[in-house]
Amino acid sequence: MTEKVTAGLNWDSIDFDKHFLPGLSVDTVIFGFHDNGLMVLLLRYKGTDAYALPGGFIYHDESGEDAAKRVLQERTGLSDIFLEQFQTFSDTGRSDPHFFKDIMAARGLKPAENHFLLRRFVSIGYYALVDYAKAVPTSDDAADECTWHDLNNLPHLIQDHSRIIETALITLREDLNKKLVGFNLLPDTFTISELQALYETVLEKKFLRTSFQRTMLSLGVLEMVSKKTGVAHKSPYLYRFVKD
Amino acid sequence: MTEKVTAGLNWDSIDFDKHFLPGLSVDTVIFGFHDNGLMVLLLRYKGTDAYALPGGFIYHDESGEDAAKRVLQERTGLSDIFLEQFQTFSDTGRSDPHFFKDIMAARGLKPAENHFLLRRFVSIGYYALVDYAKAVPTSDDAADECTWHDLNNLPHLIQDHSRIIETALITLREDLNKKLVGFNLLPDTFTISELQALYETVLEKKFLRTSFQRTMLSLGVLEMVSKKTGVAHKSPYLYRFVKD
Repeated sequence: MTEKVTAGLNWDSIDFDKHFLPGLSVDTVIFGFHDNGLMVLLLRYKGTDAYALPGGFIYHDESGEDAAKRVLQERTGLSDIFLEQFQTFSDTGRSDPHFFKDIMAARGLKPAENHFLLRRFVSIGYYALVDYAKAVPTSDDAADECTWHDLNNLPHLIQDHSRIIETALITLREDLNKKLVGFNLLPDTFTISELQALYETVLEKKFLRTSFQRTMLSLGVLEMVSKKTGVAHKSPYLYRFVKD
Repeated sequence: MTEKVTAGLNWDSIDFDKHFLPGLSVDTVIFGFHDNGLMVLLLRYKGTDAYALPGGFIYHDESGEDAAKRVLQERTGLSDIFLEQFQTFSDTGRSDPHFFKDIMAARGLKPAENHFLLRRFVSIGYYALVDYAKAVPTSDDAADECTWHDLNNLPHLIQDHSRIIETALITLREDLNKKLVGFNLLPDTFTISELQALYETVLEKKFLRTSFQRTMLSLGVLEMVSKKTGVAHKSPYLYRFVKD
C-alpha cells in the first residue's frame, strides 16, 4: 500500500469520491490512563462546539484497519499501538446530513445535495490503548482542537459517538481480563499499585491489595525489573509485561 | 422500515445501485447443532461449484442488523433468532471481481466493468444460532442449493468466507461461556447430557459429567421441566433455559 496521509487534506477542495470508499468511515476510540482516570481523545470541529471521535475515511486501496492505524498515527503521533475492531455502526438514523452541512457552512462552503459527506455512513469502530505520556494529540484540518477528555465528564458528542464510546468501553472491560490488554495503557514499567489502580478504574470496582497482587503475579505475565528508583527504602518493585 | 424481501429479486435485471448501499454487504454464519456436530449453512451458486455463506446487501433505508435478520429469515424461515455481529471484513484483496464475473457468465450475463457486484466490498459479519430441527434451508435466486455442512468437513469456499467462519467460531466459543448462548442451538427442552455434548463439540474438549452438571446447575439459569418421556425408568430430567 502506498503511504496515506490525510493530515494535509484540504476539506474545501478534495474530491472525496475519487479517493475514498463511499458511505464508509472508521471511528477510533483512543483510550489513555491519567491521574487514575480513563481519558478519551476528542476533536472539536472548526468554529463549532461539536465534539467528535477521531475518524476518517477508507482509501480505495486501504483496509479498514490500515485506515484506523493512519487516524491513530496522525492524531497521537504513535504507531505500533494496541488497536482492535469492536463493532460496526450501521443504524439508518446515525448519519445526519444537517450536521455536515452546518460544519461546512461554518467553513463558508455550500456542498451539493449528493456530496460525499452528506450521504448515509456506516462506520467501523476501533478502540486503541495508548500510553498517555507518549501520545501527542494533534488536530487535523477539520478541527480546532484535539484533546484528552475525562471519560466521566465528556462534552456533548455528535451523532452516535457517545454510543460508540460506551460500546468500546464494554469491549475494553471484557478484554482487560480476557486478553490482559491493560498493560497498553501503562508506561513500560509500573508498580503493582499502578496496575491495580488501572484495573479498578476501568472495571469500576475495588480489589483487595493482596489478592490482586497474588492473582496478577500468578498469571506469569509480569517480569520484575527493579526497585522503584528515588525513595530507596521501602520503594515498591517495578514490573514489565512479558508478551507470550 | 418497509418490508424487505430479496428472495424474489432477479439478479439478471435488478438495479443494485438503486436499492442498496454501494460496496457493503452482510455475511451470516448460521450455526446449527446436529448429531453431536456443529453445522453451518452454505449456498452453492447456480451452475458452479462455488460455495458461499448466505449473505446480502443493505437497503438504503435498512440497518446492517436488519439486513442480516432478513437474510437469516429468508434462508431458514426463522425469525427472532440469536444473531450477533462479530467482525467486519475490509481487506483490500477480499473482493475478487473475476469471481462475480464468472458467476454472471454462468448465467449468460456480461456485466459492465463498474457493475455494482464487481466493485470492492466490505462485509459485516454476523453469526446466528438456530435450532437445527426448526430451520428450513431455502435457496435464493442466485443459488442451486442451500444446505447444512459439517464444520469439520467444509467444501472450498469463495473469497475469505473460510476466514469469516473461523472468526465466527472463535466468537461463538467465547460467547458460549460469557453469554451462555449455547441454549440457542438446542431444542426448547434438553437433558444435561445434550447440553454437555453441545459444549464439548463447540469447545472441542471433554468435561467430567458430574462437574459439568454441577457447574451448569449452579448458574441458576436452568429450570427443570419434567422427566424425559418414553423410557419411564431411569430417564434423565429435561431442562429449559430461563432467560434473566
